[in-house]
Amino acid sequence: MPKVTFLPANVTVEIPEDETIIRAAMKAGLHINASCGGAGVCGKCRVFVEGGEVEGEPLPEGGYKACTLYPRSDVIVRIPVESEVDRRALLRPAKKVASAWLEARKAAQVSLDPAIKKLYLELEPPSLENNMPDLARLETALLQKLGENKLEVNWRVLHDLPYKLREKDFAVTSVVLEEKPPKLLGIEAGNTKKRHFALAVDVGTTTICAQLIDLTNGEVLGETSDYNPQISYGEDVISRIEFARKKDGLKILHEKVIECLAKLAKELCEKHKVELEEISHYSIAGNTVMSHFLLFLEPRFLRESPYVPVASRFPFIPAKELGLPGGKHTLLSLAPCVASYVGGDITAGVVATGMAKEAPLTLFIDIGTNGEIVVGNQDFLACAACSAGPAFEGGGIKYGMRATTGAIEAVHIDPVTLEPMILTIGNKKPKGICGSGIISLLANLFIEGIIDQSGKFRRDLESPRIRQGREGWEYVLVWKEESAIGEDIVFTEADIDNLIRAKGAMFSGYQTLLESVGLDITMVERVILAGNFGSFLDLEQAIIIGLLPDLPRENFYFVGNSSLIGARMAALSKEALKEMERVAQMMTHFELSAHPGYMDYYVSALFLPHTNLDLFPTVKELLQK
Amino acid sequence: MPKVTFLPANVTVEIPEDETIIRAAMKAGLHINASCGGAGVCGKCRVFVEGGEVEGEPLPEGGYKACTLYPRSDVIVRIPVESEVDRRALLRPAKKVASAWLEARKAAQVSLDPAIKKLYLELEPPSLENNMPDLARLETALLQKLGENKLEVNWRVLHDLPYKLREKDFAVTSVVLEEKPPKLLGIEAGNTKKRHFALAVDVGTTTICAQLIDLTNGEVLGETSDYNPQISYGEDVISRIEFARKKDGLKILHEKVIECLAKLAKELCEKHKVELEEISHYSIAGNTVMSHFLLFLEPRFLRESPYVPVASRFPFIPAKELGLPGGKHTLLSLAPCVASYVGGDITAGVVATGMAKEAPLTLFIDIGTNGEIVVGNQDFLACAACSAGPAFEGGGIKYGMRATTGAIEAVHIDPVTLEPMILTIGNKKPKGICGSGIISLLANLFIEGIIDQSGKFRRDLESPRIRQGREGWEYVLVWKEESAIGEDIVFTEADIDNLIRAKGAMFSGYQTLLESVGLDITMVERVILAGNFGSFLDLEQAIIIGLLPDLPRENFYFVGNSSLIGARMAALSKEALKEMERVAQMMTHFELSAHPGYMDYYVSALFLPHTNLDLFPTVKELLQK
Repeated sequence: MPKVTFLPANVTVEIPEDETIIRAAMKAGLHINASCGGAGVCGKCRVFVEGGEVEGEPLPEGGYKACTLYPRSDVIVRIPVESEVDRRALLRPAKKVASAWLEARKAAQVSLDPAIKKLYLELEPPSLENNMPDLARLETALLQKLGENKLEVNWRVLHDLPYKLREKDFAVTSVVLEEKPPKLLGIEAGNTKKRHFALAVDVGTTTICAQLIDLTNGEVLGETSDYNPQISYGEDVISRIEFARKKDGLKILHEKVIECLAKLAKELCEKHKVELEEISHYSIAGNTVMSHFLLFLEPRFLRESPYVPVASRFPFIPAKELGLPGGKHTLLSLAPCVASYVGGDITAGVVATGMAKEAPLTLFIDIGTNGEIVVGNQDFLACAACSAGPAFEGGGIKYGMRATTGAIEAVHIDPVTLEPMILTIGNKKPKGICGSGIISLLANLFIEGIIDQSGKFRRDLESPRIRQGREGWEYVLVWKEESAIGEDIVFTEADIDNLIRAKGAMFSGYQTLLESVGLDITMVERVILAGNFGSFLDLEQAIIIGLLPDLPRENFYFVGNSSLIGARMAALSKEALKEMERVAQMMTHFELSAHPGYMDYYVSALFLPHTNLDLFPTVKELLQK
Repeated sequence: MPKVTFLPANVTVEIPEDETIIRAAMKAGLHINASCGGAGVCGKCRVFVEGGEVEGEPLPEGGYKACTLYPRSDVIVRIPVESEVDRRALLRPAKKVASAWLEARKAAQVSLDPAIKKLYLELEPPSLENNMPDLARLETALLQKLGENKLEVNWRVLHDLPYKLREKDFAVTSVVLEEKPPKLLGIEAGNTKKRHFALAVDVGTTTICAQLIDLTNGEVLGETSDYNPQISYGEDVISRIEFARKKDGLKILHEKVIECLAKLAKELCEKHKVELEEISHYSIAGNTVMSHFLLFLEPRFLRESPYVPVASRFPFIPAKELGLPGGKHTLLSLAPCVASYVGGDITAGVVATGMAKEAPLTLFIDIGTNGEIVVGNQDFLACAACSAGPAFEGGGIKYGMRATTGAIEAVHIDPVTLEPMILTIGNKKPKGICGSGIISLLANLFIEGIIDQSGKFRRDLESPRIRQGREGWEYVLVWKEESAIGEDIVFTEADIDNLIRAKGAMFSGYQTLLESVGLDITMVERVILAGNFGSFLDLEQAIIIGLLPDLPRENFYFVGNSSLIGARMAALSKEALKEMERVAQMMTHFELSAHPGYMDYYVSALFLPHTNLDLFPTVKELLQK
């Protein structure tokens, strides 16, 4: 990767050849005015190339637009003074992200020992001396191979059994679920052991991600994802539970998620030349509400006190009975849930991290519409759901949006001019702000003293970007001329309030849960961040706003879509399936609102970063500077 | 019941008030000329009433037609000399039938302990302190009640679980299959223990019989039956297997039997005010071919050497998956088969007799299209299928027919005039001859010396009833003027040949099977006759023609539809289900045609009663008279 050295700051970063110089600057922690998100239209981001090869269109007045400039070798770039107004910009710490958990642990290794196996047998063909029934012939040989004395049989196997046996002269591959007793799921003519696949799926409230897994070697052949089509019927789980109460509501939600799963399965199979009948296992993890919709289970009592799921552990279910494509033998498994708002995605996530098998006290955080937290180690696991709300996913934020093209994903504010530097996903004209942009923006506004600890704008700053709008004070992030939506993109005090409540809910959640098990935050040895957030999150910024606890940065890890990883492990390993059961059993769920101290913790957390600054020593130090 | 005394023979029999005097005469072993089958048209059966009350129309020339005369008190009836030509008619032994097996054993008692049970539980309703999932709440209580630690769950139970639990404040009845591990099949609100039913069904090649069973007390609430609608596609199993090879043939045969089962279930439920959802169990027994059709299994290899069934033991199958009416929880079980032509009807039958639990060496005989025989006791069981063909059900007999209205069911031939006395089912003009009529006729022709031991007509008898027809020598049983079909009903030498071959196949079957296990016929301590035949069969006649072995008459029993009885026992008792498995395992199947001595035995049996008369000592004695 080319190295880019910025002058006059003399900071060097490495970036891939397909990233722009403005992104390199953002990465280096340097400010360049940029208000079009990298779309190349505002022209404010002029830089001069002082050495090395670049690709980009020179400006007539000299220099290049940093947002359309690519390095083609190591380069030296000067940021002109009109942009880099003040050395204070350099005070901003370079973006620090959590280490990749799986890489730190050399990946989530599981021994390849799937619960659903293919067994190849060459049977003795029948004769007048030995004319036992087809099934008995197969059963006898299978039981011998398995070292078992009882076999359950999926009766639908019987329909083509005689033909499958005779097709290759009684050489046959059985698909068997290794349980007690083992279950014969299906039968294939000849030796088909080399063709055996599974789909691992994370069914999220917003996104459904699927991986096609080769069960013969554990490889991930491909991955795909799509929005959960239930979104049309409600953005969050609560509104979908409401929709489910309407006539056919539940049926629609059920069918939508099944259709989407079917679509993803077909897409992956087609791309990787796998027959749908070669899929033996849909290994799925999802939150409790998604699990209910998937199985067509009444979700109503999940949201009515005392918040009771229909079930939290689920049997293997024939995929056909759910209308999913596959063979007659194909089974679906769902990661076990813990409570109404701590679901199988969390169980799978905890299994993916391995934290329940190790000694260090670990805090597992999944920041999503509903923040879930787990704390524990090999000896205990405690979990809770925080009603954080969707603010960190852009929900309830005036110009908040999901992380799609045109979303502002990174922001820096010049501390002197208060001009922003913004980057959008896809380098398009900005449409709104997504989660990581929101955190950047909030942290910048706070750390530059534009808003105070309670999230209110300083009324004495003279900048056209800070103004009283119709809904109170606000910061203009993008003028309408430069936005893709024909209006100013602003960030309001009401938005900030929402964010403070959301981060307050998370932080007081950590505190309450830890206190419930007799511990406190300083005892946490590792923090693992799950969800899409983890890899993009600027740790410093997240700590500055009090969303994450102020712990040594090297103890933070991101694990990515741990729900999907857990689902994959469950497809690959009987042991992981069992571990999922064990973890679900082991997890003690705490209802935060039932804790007597929770409300106090919550109220104390409604400050940036917190009422008690001693909880955030590095932020305290920074503020004192 | 009124007593009827016949003069001049001075023989008294009891008959119900709705039976005619001519039937009383047949029962008493007395001959009255009668050629219209009891339809009241030939007018040959004149009798005189000498005492007691009768109902019937007097003939103008005096006396009454015996076939339309009913006793209204004890009566004395004189048979005029022109009918009772010769005292030799009295030589005919009075009809002797086998004792009813179940009555002899005080019924097939099983302890009432069905495999599918209803369990009533009052659960603690959920609260914030105890908000475990609905399923876990139920599961915990159920496992405690069952004394088990693992429960399998029919996932479809989950769909209405929350409502069923809440309908009666968490008082709920579970339907559970008691296996290892137990399986939760269904759930009902409140206490429904008192409403629990099963259907026991014998799926025969010709007839399907069903009983509605109250599982709370073991009572048979009702019984019904219908022709197996597959008959339209082939009278016997072989022709149906052929039909199954046509496009959609198997599907049609499968659907027809399912439709018929559904119809019988609905009919019984309607009549006895039982909801179809209250049926927990279809307990079915049928021969191997019927079992294959019922489950939509390929029957083709049953009839191709080496005669391999797809399966002989069948798992419990959800009734809904077969398209049968019932609840989501309703299961179907099928009695295990032994071989391609010894099916679950025989296994069920053996269980019904209890012969596999007792010491006496027992010969179990089911004479149907395919004769099946089982010999054994508590220590061993051996079985075989005899390809006897359908002659004893009227198949392959020129005027043979099934036992329906108009079928000649009893015959007596006057030894002097050779005039017949016939009775038809329903007292209608005769259409043909059914099984019991065929045996009567054959035995009469033989014992009166009208045919010889090889089944050929004596050529020297002067009677218009014995003649050379287009197909050789024949006996005219009904002249066309008196038949319902407008033609003479005759019994030909070809018919007799078929019958001799059929009874020869049965008898050589007994011999071969017994020899296969180192025994011979004289060692048999009991003979149990299964099927419809048993109760109507005239033992003496069946022995005279060599269909049954010549053993002491008191050792013969008929058990009726033992397949149905076995199916009922399997519904009522877990133990009987297990016994069925044990019996099927225990039964050693012998392929008769593979036995080196079989052909010799068969050829020797192609005589009336047998080439070796010493095997039939009482017949030998009778013939010497």
